[in-house]
Amino acid sequence: MLGQFTEGEWFTEKYFHKNVASSFKIKSVLHSEKSQYQQIDVLDTYGIGRLLLLDGKTMVSHVDEFVYHEVMGHIPNMVHPNAKKVLIIGGGDGGIVREMVKHKNLERIDLVEIDERVIEVSKQFFPECTSGLSDPRVNVCPCDGVEYIKSFTDFFDIIIIDSTDPEDFAAGLFTKEFYSAVYNALTKDGIMMAQTENPFYDEYGIFNFYENLRSSFSVVKSFTAPMLIYPGVFWTFAFASKGVLPTALNESKLDEMSAIEKDLKWYNMNWHLGAFNLSNIHKKVTGC
Amino acid sequence: MLGQFTEGEWFTEKYFHKNVASSFKIKSVLHSEKSQYQQIDVLDTYGIGRLLLLDGKTMVSHVDEFVYHEVMGHIPNMVHPNAKKVLIIGGGDGGIVREMVKHKNLERIDLVEIDERVIEVSKQFFPECTSGLSDPRVNVCPCDGVEYIKSFTDFFDIIIIDSTDPEDFAAGLFTKEFYSAVYNALTKDGIMMAQTENPFYDEYGIFNFYENLRSSFSVVKSFTAPMLIYPGVFWTFAFASKGVLPTALNESKLDEMSAIEKDLKWYNMNWHLGAFNLSNIHKKVTGC
Repeated sequence: MLGQFTEGEWFTEKYFHKNVASSFKIKSVLHSEKSQYQQIDVLDTYGIGRLLLLDGKTMVSHVDEFVYHEVMGHIPNMVHPNAKKVLIIGGGDGGIVREMVKHKNLERIDLVEIDERVIEVSKQFFPECTSGLSDPRVNVCPCDGVEYIKSFTDFFDIIIIDSTDPEDFAAGLFTKEFYSAVYNALTKDGIMMAQTENPFYDEYGIFNFYENLRSSFSVVKSFTAPMLIYPGVFWTFAFASKGVLPTALNESKLDEMSAIEKDLKWYNMNWHLGAFNLSNIHKKVTGC
Repeated sequence: MLGQFTEGEWFTEKYFHKNVASSFKIKSVLHSEKSQYQQIDVLDTYGIGRLLLLDGKTMVSHVDEFVYHEVMGHIPNMVHPNAKKVLIIGGGDGGIVREMVKHKNLERIDLVEIDERVIEVSKQFFPECTSGLSDPRVNVCPCDGVEYIKSFTDFFDIIIIDSTDPEDFAAGLFTKEFYSAVYNALTKDGIMMAQTENPFYDEYGIFNFYENLRSSFSVVKSFTAPMLIYPGVFWTFAFASKGVLPTALNESKLDEMSAIEKDLKWYNMNWHLGAFNLSNIHKKVTGC
């Protein structure tokens, strides 16, 4: 036993008003600490490999980390006409950075993670995620993304919000005021991406997140990709921009991506083009 | 308490070698019986409404039944050039029939469910699923689908395999021999549909199901739609045909479907057109 977890027992996350649960059998407990901001645990499991927990919530696992990181890293790069500067808020596991550094057009990638310990724990237990952090274009800033973004105007081409659920200190990352600050920090062809929860359970009011986005951005679209360790698995993501459309692939990037996508586990351009064709429940819940 | 379930406790299904689990909190136990073929239980839950279990495995729930039934019922009808006769094997809950009867071109819909008690229990506890069974075009046959299909040659335009996991008496519904019998029972433009499990956990060897399909059918494609109560949620389905392509919508059906899809919860034609654009893991696991 380490922290509150015991080998051979189960880690369980309850959700949707605590009436639905997902559980993963624990092979060993690799790490447990209380940082300045949150409880950080790393489990090794039998079914999904290593699993990072923040305040007891599933964040990253071996079974599906590539889905989230590849869609966040490649979709905006494949439609932005000429992206050079990227900001990632949250995402201390480094997975999105790993995908971003595959794009040669990028010149600067800022990773702003409020909890430096998440980065250090990820380097130790998820080295396959943090491998991009040593790229010379990457600047890691252990600070508050909400404050950081206010100091930029017309600066970043792509901003990725890699947040936890809209609770506690992450709740500010889903507000109208924050999205307005993101808009101001983006260049004229700027794109913002964010995770927006599960529409079947819809614990947090997804429609309001999208309404908040629509109050700043002229293009607000949604797509889906599965996250096996997140509540309900069927996960939605937002794509918001000042005009760039989510499925108009940048022709100058096609050859580069044809080479990159051969080694990816989830993303390919053909999938990208179909991912914004939404089911009725997805359209209804997001208003997209 | 009724059968093995107790109000206020949890129903838990373990999967992927019993190392991953999904749980739903029980509001009340509505029904429990042992039929000639299997244990049948109906629970009411707090998170997902009513839940039908066969031998302790999740089959149908209020939260997501429409996904499975709408994709199975509408995809083949929207691409077949002139479907008149449909066979559904399994599917005693009636949900696919409910969607099929919305298509005016269909003249005969056979529902072959080996366990008559599943139909009766569904009529009692899932009346919103069984509402199509009283349509005069529907013939319900409580018999073995594997035997039933052998008596037809060049007869059905669409055959839907609505099976449980490939275990016990359902294992025969995933074999080369069965798919060959389905092929023979189909007309020249015939289409077959089947559920094909979760590619992340892949407990049963999905690639072999698709290889078995490819041994009979010239067109074998796959798509995905989420089933919240099934292991891992991210669910794959097979579309197999003698030549009809899964995304070439039948133009004579567009107006009818434009009216139908307004009242659906999942399916729409735009979603249909994107659903066969597969992620890399989906392509790898299915060979599609």
